[in-house]
Amino acid sequence: MTNWNNLDKLVSYNRVKTLGGNFDLAKSMSGESGAARVNKYSVKMAAGLNYNYAAKEVDDEVIAALGELANEAELVEKYKALYEGEVINTGEKRMVLHQLTRGQLGKDVVADGVNKREFYLAQQNRIADFANKVHAGEIVNEAGEKFTTVVQIGIGGSDLGPRAMYLALENWAKVNNSFKMNAEFISNVDPDDASAVLNKVDVAHSIFILVSKSGTTLETLTNESFVKDALAKAGLDASKHMIAVTSETSPLAKSDDYLDAFYMDDYIGGRYSSTSAVGGAVLSLAFGPEIFARFLNGAAEEDKLSANAVITENPAMLDALIGVYERNVKGYESTAVLPYSQALSRFPAHLQQLDMESNGKQVNRFGEDIDYKTGPVIFGEPGTNGQHSFYQLLHQGTDIIPLQFIGFKNSQIGNDVVIQESTSQQKLCANVAAQIVAFACGKDDENKNKKFEGGRPSSIIIGEELTPEALGALLAHFENKVMFQGFVWNINSFDQEGVQLGKVLAKKVLAHETEGALKMYSDLLNI
Amino acid sequence: MTNWNNLDKLVSYNRVKTLGGNFDLAKSMSGESGAARVNKYSVKMAAGLNYNYAAKEVDDEVIAALGELANEAELVEKYKALYEGEVINTGEKRMVLHQLTRGQLGKDVVADGVNKREFYLAQQNRIADFANKVHAGEIVNEAGEKFTTVVQIGIGGSDLGPRAMYLALENWAKVNNSFKMNAEFISNVDPDDASAVLNKVDVAHSIFILVSKSGTTLETLTNESFVKDALAKAGLDASKHMIAVTSETSPLAKSDDYLDAFYMDDYIGGRYSSTSAVGGAVLSLAFGPEIFARFLNGAAEEDKLSANAVITENPAMLDALIGVYERNVKGYESTAVLPYSQALSRFPAHLQQLDMESNGKQVNRFGEDIDYKTGPVIFGEPGTNGQHSFYQLLHQGTDIIPLQFIGFKNSQIGNDVVIQESTSQQKLCANVAAQIVAFACGKDDENKNKKFEGGRPSSIIIGEELTPEALGALLAHFENKVMFQGFVWNINSFDQEGVQLGKVLAKKVLAHETEGALKMYSDLLNI
Repeated sequence: MTNWNNLDKLVSYNRVKTLGGNFDLAKSMSGESGAARVNKYSVKMAAGLNYNYAAKEVDDEVIAALGELANEAELVEKYKALYEGEVINTGEKRMVLHQLTRGQLGKDVVADGVNKREFYLAQQNRIADFANKVHAGEIVNEAGEKFTTVVQIGIGGSDLGPRAMYLALENWAKVNNSFKMNAEFISNVDPDDASAVLNKVDVAHSIFILVSKSGTTLETLTNESFVKDALAKAGLDASKHMIAVTSETSPLAKSDDYLDAFYMDDYIGGRYSSTSAVGGAVLSLAFGPEIFARFLNGAAEEDKLSANAVITENPAMLDALIGVYERNVKGYESTAVLPYSQALSRFPAHLQQLDMESNGKQVNRFGEDIDYKTGPVIFGEPGTNGQHSFYQLLHQGTDIIPLQFIGFKNSQIGNDVVIQESTSQQKLCANVAAQIVAFACGKDDENKNKKFEGGRPSSIIIGEELTPEALGALLAHFENKVMFQGFVWNINSFDQEGVQLGKVLAKKVLAHETEGALKMYSDLLNI
Repeated sequence: MTNWNNLDKLVSYNRVKTLGGNFDLAKSMSGESGAARVNKYSVKMAAGLNYNYAAKEVDDEVIAALGELANEAELVEKYKALYEGEVINTGEKRMVLHQLTRGQLGKDVVADGVNKREFYLAQQNRIADFANKVHAGEIVNEAGEKFTTVVQIGIGGSDLGPRAMYLALENWAKVNNSFKMNAEFISNVDPDDASAVLNKVDVAHSIFILVSKSGTTLETLTNESFVKDALAKAGLDASKHMIAVTSETSPLAKSDDYLDAFYMDDYIGGRYSSTSAVGGAVLSLAFGPEIFARFLNGAAEEDKLSANAVITENPAMLDALIGVYERNVKGYESTAVLPYSQALSRFPAHLQQLDMESNGKQVNRFGEDIDYKTGPVIFGEPGTNGQHSFYQLLHQGTDIIPLQFIGFKNSQIGNDVVIQESTSQQKLCANVAAQIVAFACGKDDENKNKKFEGGRPSSIIIGEELTPEALGALLAHFENKVMFQGFVWNINSFDQEGVQLGKVLAKKVLAHETEGALKMYSDLLNI
């Protein structure tokens, strides 16, 4: 029987709090000691990635104590309970099964009389079949012409993850003969978002994917109307241009309004849905089902690593516990995600949702108050761009902000130039290496304005190249990290009650049922 | 004679710290009191914008005390000193003249024998002339055909601001007969960034703008080579496709490698350069010089408002001081910028640089240690997208994060649909109104997981529509807010010594002059 205790009730947490007071990151990362740390503090991830935490404010003693904390908090047992179908999402009384979309780690999970792994696989196969037929010209538009573009209509998890994944592999696919269709995304209820995308695409050759689990997401249904208007204006039959990704019980399922419908279910939250039909439809159409399968394989391999009870062999658990140490012992309030890869330009925005929506909670999984900090603010932009922007504050600001770097040895496109005896890719990699050491070690200077205190912690995930497998591994790493942190904080990482109040009040505004400040703001905004 | 004192030496600051302890935002924003606050706590900005701070944790007493702080810190005097050419950038011993690109607020500023206002105007006029000739087909490619695309090559301030401004006006220009040329941007040293843009554009009909003040920015020069390679491969003469925006003393000035060169100078920092030739060239080519002039007019009007010593009539100063109150008295560490406008999708990324690079400092303007917090972390995404992402943490997380909303009554494109008796634009506006009240007032619930504590402060800037003037006013508002906060904190908001160490170490890596941890990371990244 698993124990769900608050973090501050754990003996090992109280021990962790006493440690690390004398640790000096700048000193530890200097000279031979620094070299030894880089060599030692590294864990293998899937798809050839490595998680290197040498520049974190930890030593063997802290890592060992975090391992004890992981044990006492029964993290791998909780993970097992999750992937074997216990009701982990206590608030909504649901299982949490996104890992099952990419592999089976434990015993069969049956819900509503259905084997869920088989259900997810069946949807993948149906999507693969549909995508193959589109690519082969067997499913075509009304004029008998091939579709060239796919447009995802969704918001939140139906947008951020799939969009980030698409952008991450777009250029890779183009140079690896896997680019099948251009993808675009409509998400915001701002009418200018849908209008701009619709003005850009060739609607006659576009398939639109309507993504809404409930079939009732207001933004998404509104944007569907935009699309239907555009199709009608072009003299086209919308039902020949749209598919739905939804739950089997939603109003969108089995409707004649769509060419076809692919299913998700209540056991996969939006922000964890990139490996479900939500990501599967758009990515399979854009790059082909084989590429989507490779992406899933990378995630599945990473999921397996997360089941290891040895903290130094479990990168997601280690990353999670170092994060807890930084948040609860060191008191840092935010974390920057800094991929040195332009293809990952929207990956920080996806992690921002994944992490902040999962762990931005102030009650535990039983709805009781807690007395410690939970999820941090997550933000980031690709390097080297960030270096010319907000890194000033990261280096010399008055708060310490832990950093998560990501870097690859090789570019995706492979086109490069040599300037001043190095390629752009070498410059990119040289910069990320330099930044880690600059943040950790700093530099003294008589002019205090040019002094760098150092002691600013970071970790880096290094890979050969951003391939579909590497992307899947990256995604699963962060999903599992967030899950483990939720377990440590004893919160429910899988609901989002904090988004409800705004929705309720917005409905009141639209119904003109407001008073006081809300009425005043409504008037100011001409509603 | 202006006094440059540290914040904690000011009598009024020590008074401000004693105030507001009993202020209850949720209570104040409820019922009639809330309506009265929305009505009262509003300041006119330029271009029909209004800054409404009703949902901030301030009352008349706090505002009055912040006004005293503004007086004691001599904020408008320091602003005057700045725009009249005093050496405000003490670290680099430079004047700070970006406001002069859009208007003249005080006496003539002469540097190096040149009237700077006249110099900036002359560059604007030269750019306008060039852009008009391109649009008229008087400046054409080698085949005598019109240019259709402009590609900006720059990084940091030469990228983020101009890119955000371009995206902000792209759709507006299209529906207002002002869209002259498509613009693209190359910034990252990641070779995949330049490759992807070059694969996308029609180089034979593209003008490339190389933007580097010093003419030595490594990323930018590297990307210039990428572009020259692409032009050469297409059999084109690069010098007929490129212009430079640089300082008159840089190696790029007066070079035969470019069709023409337009000048900036050392008195305008990169992050403040959107209204200089850095933004002027790309925006004038994309939308025409008249639109760029309207953008400058909006900024100039806002600059004038910033010279008002009465805090309740000076929106940038008021915003700045409320921010200082939140940072130094309330202890909040980050601020979210949340535009309810898809056109402002990259505006938060620009403000992130503007604010964090300007005020992420830990020594005062004389290079002395300070004992208080300076610039916060800035992050944000457009609403309503953010609502389906990180708002969970903003509502129910364990830290309070002040919010800056931006909203417009009307969309730019004007195309809309009615669903459930409201337009998308009304839904968009209803959501931002609802969020302000939800954050401020919260909602009790027996189920603590569904309880919203409220007390989460925000302000909103409301406009009619995102026009060129409104965008200019918005930009100047935040530039001036950041400037005033830098004055209050007694720091130099106009240098960026914190970016230097990384550059130095990256050069060592590329020269293979490393040891210890830096050599280990270099090896891991195959450099």
